[in-house]
Amino acid sequence: MSALESRTQFYTLPYPLILESGEQLSDVQVAYRTWGRLDGNGGNAVVVCHALTGTPNVEEWWGPLLGSGLALDPDRDFIISSNILGSCYGTTGPADSRSPFPRITIRDMVALQRALLPHLGVKRIRLAIGGSLGGMQALEWGLMAPDLVEAIAPIATSAQHNAWQIAISESQRSAIFADPAWRDGNYEAGQPPRDGLAVARMIAMISYRSHSSFTSRFGRAERDGGFHVEEWLRRHGQKLVARFDARSYVALTRAMDTHDVGRGRGGTEAALRSIVQPALIVSVNSDVLYPPIEQEELAALIPRARFEVLASENGHDAFLIDMEELNQIVTDFRARVERESCQTKGTQRCA
Amino acid sequence: MSALESRTQFYTLPYPLILESGEQLSDVQVAYRTWGRLDGNGGNAVVVCHALTGTPNVEEWWGPLLGSGLALDPDRDFIISSNILGSCYGTTGPADSRSPFPRITIRDMVALQRALLPHLGVKRIRLAIGGSLGGMQALEWGLMAPDLVEAIAPIATSAQHNAWQIAISESQRSAIFADPAWRDGNYEAGQPPRDGLAVARMIAMISYRSHSSFTSRFGRAERDGGFHVEEWLRRHGQKLVARFDARSYVALTRAMDTHDVGRGRGGTEAALRSIVQPALIVSVNSDVLYPPIEQEELAALIPRARFEVLASENGHDAFLIDMEELNQIVTDFRARVERESCQTKGTQRCA
Repeated sequence: MSALESRTQFYTLPYPLILESGEQLSDVQVAYRTWGRLDGNGGNAVVVCHALTGTPNVEEWWGPLLGSGLALDPDRDFIISSNILGSCYGTTGPADSRSPFPRITIRDMVALQRALLPHLGVKRIRLAIGGSLGGMQALEWGLMAPDLVEAIAPIATSAQHNAWQIAISESQRSAIFADPAWRDGNYEAGQPPRDGLAVARMIAMISYRSHSSFTSRFGRAERDGGFHVEEWLRRHGQKLVARFDARSYVALTRAMDTHDVGRGRGGTEAALRSIVQPALIVSVNSDVLYPPIEQEELAALIPRARFEVLASENGHDAFLIDMEELNQIVTDFRARVERESCQTKGTQRCA
Repeated sequence: MSALESRTQFYTLPYPLILESGEQLSDVQVAYRTWGRLDGNGGNAVVVCHALTGTPNVEEWWGPLLGSGLALDPDRDFIISSNILGSCYGTTGPADSRSPFPRITIRDMVALQRALLPHLGVKRIRLAIGGSLGGMQALEWGLMAPDLVEAIAPIATSAQHNAWQIAISESQRSAIFADPAWRDGNYEAGQPPRDGLAVARMIAMISYRSHSSFTSRFGRAERDGGFHVEEWLRRHGQKLVARFDARSYVALTRAMDTHDVGRGRGGTEAALRSIVQPALIVSVNSDVLYPPIEQEELAALIPRARFEVLASENGHDAFLIDMEELNQIVTDFRARVERESCQTKGTQRCA
C-alpha cells in the first residue's frame, strides 16, 4: 500500500460523548482515514478538518496538499481526517435514525475528533488545519487543546458566525423546510426533500464563488436553451442531493451558526488573545461568504498569527481550487513554525 | 390636492404592444402616477423607473427625493412613474390571467412606458432615473429614445446581467418552482406558492444588503429563541408573499436576466459608447449584487458619464436607504446638466 492509499476506518466510542449542551450521545461512531505512520512518541499527528459537505478522504478534496514533499506529508506526518459529528459519511449524525438528533456545536465536533486520539496512540498534534467549517474546528482545536496542539491553520473562516453567514444558512434551511418531503426531518430514506436540498445547494454555491469568477467562467453564455450558469447551478444542486442527507445539512449549518470562539471565554477578543499556538490565518481576497475583514480580525487578535492572502477570483471556494498556492502558503508556515520551535527548544539542529 | 398627493391612474393602449420577441400583447393596461404639472411645451417630464417588486408610488419608496426643492421637484418637473410590464400593481402581467404570458425584456418595459407619453402630452423627458431594475430601464431609455430623453441616471445597475446576477435570480426561481403549489404557474388566486416565494425573497434580501450592514444591525443577537436576522429574513419573506405575485416575480427576474444593452447594437461597448445623454452613474461601494466594477464599466464607456459613489454599508439597497445622500447626488447632477445645457443652447440666463 503506497503512502497515498488510505481506507475509511471506524471507531466506536466506548463511553458516551458529552455534548456542550450537556446532553449525552451513546455509541458514537467516527469514520476516519489516516496517511503516514505515527512516530514512536505519538508526536507527529496532523489533523485535517473537512468543510460542510466534506468527507475524511483528503486525497479527494485536497490532493495537491497531500503527499511526499507537500504541506501534508505522509513521509513525515501522521495525518488524520475524520468525518465530523452530524455528517453522513460514516460518523454518527441525524441521518442514522429517526429519533431527534441533539443540537451540536463546533466544539462537539472537535471533542469527538479528540476522543479518537487515544485509540490511535496520538500524543501531540503538530497542526490542526481546515477551511471554512474546517477552519472553525481548527480554531477550536487551538482553544480546546492548548497543550496538545502545536500550531493551527484556520483558512477562509471567522471567529464567529455573523448575521451574514447565519442569514445565508437560514435561507438554505428554509428552502429545505419548504419542501413538503422534509416532513420535519422524518422522511423515509428513499423520499428525501430533494428539491429543497437542491435549492439550498444552489444558494450555497453562489456564496462559495464570486461575481468575477462567474463572469470569467460563464458570462452570458447559453446552453440547452438557458444560461450556462443556470445549468451549472442546477447540476450542483442535483449532485449534492445524490450524495448528502438533508437532516445532516440542517444539523451542520445550525452547528456552524453556533460558532463563536468567545462563548464562555469572555468574548471574542479575549478568546482570540488566549490562543497560544502559531496560527496561519489564510484569507481569500474575493471571499463573499467569509469576507477578509473576518480573517483580519483573527490575525489582529491572535498573538502568534501569520496572515496570508490567497489572491484569487474564485471566492470562498479558492481554498479548494487554488490548491498549489495554498500548498505553498501552508508549507512555508510549517517550515517557519519548525524553525522557531527548534530555536526555542534547541532540541534539534536548526536549519 | 397638494403637490405630493397622487393617485394611481390607468391607461389602456389602443393598439397592441409589439414586444422585442415579435409577439403582440393586446389591451395592455398601464398603472401610473404623476406629480407636478406638465409645462406648455410638454417638455418638463421626469420618468422614474421602479425596481423589481416596486410600485409607481414614488412617495412610498423614494420620498426623500420627491418634493419641493428636492431632486425630483413637482414645482418644476412633471414626474411620471408607471408600474412596469409584467408586474402586479395594475399594469398587465402574468398575474392577470392563466394564459401563458410571453417572455418580456427590459426594452418591452420601456416601450410600454413610452407608449403612455402621447396620452399625457409629454414631448421631452428631462431625466429618466431608477435603481437596479429601474436603472436598467434608465439605460434603455437613453438608448431607445435619444431624441426624447435629455439625461439618464442609472443607479446600482449594470450594462448587462452577468452570470452572478443570473445565478442569484435562478436560485430564487428554483425556490418558487420547488413549491408544489407553483403548478407551473397555474395556481389559483388563493393558493399561490407561498413558501417558495418567501424563500426567493429571503435569498434576494441577503443579496440586497451586505456583511457589514448585517453585522452592525444584527450581529449574533437572538430573538424568539433564534437569531434576530433569521426572524428578520422570514418576516421579509412573508411580507412579500402578502403583496406580490409569484408569476410576476418569475417573469420580471427573467426579464432582468435578458438585460444586455449590447443586444442588437454591436455589443456592450458599442452600445454604451453610443449613449448621447449626460449620464449619472451611481455605484454603492458595498453592493454585493451589482458590484462597483459594473458601474465603473458604465462610467468608463458612456461618453458623458458622471460617476458618483454612494458610500454606504447598506449594500445594493442603499439606493432605497441612504436617500438624503442620493438626493444630493441627483440634485447636483441635475444642476450641472442644466448649466451645461444652458451654456450650449444659450436659451436662458445661465447661473
